[in-house]
Amino acid sequence: MAVYTDVDDEELIAFLAGYDLGALLSCKGIAEGVENSNYYLHTSAGSFILTLYEKRVAEADLPFFLGLMEHLSAKGLGCPQPVRDRAGAALGRLAGRPAAIVTFLDGYSVHHPEPAHCARLGEALAQLHLAGADFPLRRANALSVGGWRPLYAPFAARAGEVAEDLGAIVAAELETLERDWPSGLPEGVIHADLFPDNVFFLGDRVSGLIDFYFACVDSLAYDLAICLNAWCFDAAGAYDAEKGAALLSSYARARPLTEAEADAFPLLARGAALRFLLTRFVDWLNVPRGALVRPKDPREYLARLRFHKTIRSASDYGLRT
Amino acid sequence: MAVYTDVDDEELIAFLAGYDLGALLSCKGIAEGVENSNYYLHTSAGSFILTLYEKRVAEADLPFFLGLMEHLSAKGLGCPQPVRDRAGAALGRLAGRPAAIVTFLDGYSVHHPEPAHCARLGEALAQLHLAGADFPLRRANALSVGGWRPLYAPFAARAGEVAEDLGAIVAAELETLERDWPSGLPEGVIHADLFPDNVFFLGDRVSGLIDFYFACVDSLAYDLAICLNAWCFDAAGAYDAEKGAALLSSYARARPLTEAEADAFPLLARGAALRFLLTRFVDWLNVPRGALVRPKDPREYLARLRFHKTIRSASDYGLRT
Repeated sequence: MAVYTDVDDEELIAFLAGYDLGALLSCKGIAEGVENSNYYLHTSAGSFILTLYEKRVAEADLPFFLGLMEHLSAKGLGCPQPVRDRAGAALGRLAGRPAAIVTFLDGYSVHHPEPAHCARLGEALAQLHLAGADFPLRRANALSVGGWRPLYAPFAARAGEVAEDLGAIVAAELETLERDWPSGLPEGVIHADLFPDNVFFLGDRVSGLIDFYFACVDSLAYDLAICLNAWCFDAAGAYDAEKGAALLSSYARARPLTEAEADAFPLLARGAALRFLLTRFVDWLNVPRGALVRPKDPREYLARLRFHKTIRSASDYGLRT
Repeated sequence: MAVYTDVDDEELIAFLAGYDLGALLSCKGIAEGVENSNYYLHTSAGSFILTLYEKRVAEADLPFFLGLMEHLSAKGLGCPQPVRDRAGAALGRLAGRPAAIVTFLDGYSVHHPEPAHCARLGEALAQLHLAGADFPLRRANALSVGGWRPLYAPFAARAGEVAEDLGAIVAAELETLERDWPSGLPEGVIHADLFPDNVFFLGDRVSGLIDFYFACVDSLAYDLAICLNAWCFDAAGAYDAEKGAALLSSYARARPLTEAEADAFPLLARGAALRFLLTRFVDWLNVPRGALVRPKDPREYLARLRFHKTIRSASDYGLRT
């Protein structure tokens, strides 16, 4: 997100003329989202976010993402609500790119989540899963077990550049996870990237979830495993059992885990750790020299992966049922 | 402006507690300004801009900049108005940096200025000069004639990397301008960087001026010469006499140029072109390899410089008095 498409004021005014949003008052590129260009948009009708979809997001997926946000908003979930133009379309075109306007969501990301934040996250995630249950569109998870080996293979020879034993660990892990990955768990819409950056709080409550551009249909418990990885380890990489217990237990109060989900949970957590380890590994190797954006350290997820391999069941993470 | 200081939510909430601005609702890094980190800040009291001053702005200059914005706002000029904290201070400290909150200004930059925009700019610039006349603080212009040679000298040997004749032209120009640079012209507060990015319009009117971080005390007509360079050449580098006439004449209606200013104007315009040629030249040589921000082309100002050398008086630019 270090690059923005520069939006011409005349083009933007012409684009806005297709909406019932009044006159343009202000439009500023904002530092939010990593895949797209986002702008704070102020018109005489209020505040919005304008998104221009850049190359990394497939245009064919946009109806899924925008439809999902609309579906979830209609169910009362706090998330950006796509604004339709006068012709009824949520997706338009601006500056040569697919473009959408969504409602502006107040709230801010929490930099140092406490157990109370993890508890609120668990509730919000369960609400997302329940609200998404009857969403009719489908999108496969390109970054689930079947996608990891093709992602990793072209760069496997360079694993040693990140950690001496990375190659051996990833090879063994791919073999195990491809063989044992659970099937038949309850499925539905998952966010698939619900890191602290993508959860807005106002004081102690969750005001909304953003950045649905990895959302897909997959095992619901896998989404919870992603959140466990993203929220419940301290800066040194140690598991915080209090945060983990808060997340899992508050999720399960709103949507109880099935026995199969609880049994599979350590493996799902390993898979989630591997998924972020691999994408970070590839980003790490492919950062442009001298770029001002520092890639995230893949080794954080190597440490998480090692931890998950010591766990036997969801209750070992602190799930109280 | 490709790098932002990441502002921790807890630190920000503690910082805001010193102001009468209510509760934090949202804070997002925005793509505005090149010297500092800027954030769109929404609180229960309204919309603001939070600025963290990064290394390129000298902390000792901040009272001048903030005092100037406060002075100009009080005179009714559209510009960001610093918000004082409960202790009466306009300058605070956040994330280890000097920090200030200013009012949010609606409006947007015009990408393709028309003569009518140049006319409005001329009026706004004259209003700025008139409103700044009794501002009591002083700040020298580090990027006026005395600053050009020290800026250029360390990189002079590399002039040929940008244009074959750049070295010869700059050497001759420095000699001429250092010898003939006018003194005794009417002085006062100048913006010194009033490019289209820094002028907000709402429809056909100027809603405000931003980014006062090059402001200083210097010849008023030099500020007008900077605007002429920044606004009145087309994309191919040709002078647009209609825009120039609109800018100069509308400025002069609000603040008539003295005879000395009109006589000196071609030389001031050459100086302004050289100033931006030199800073762009240095930035061009010093861009980090692989950086995602493309430096602006210094040669655009070489073309302007050549043009100004053909001009004998302000009326040749189209000034109608």
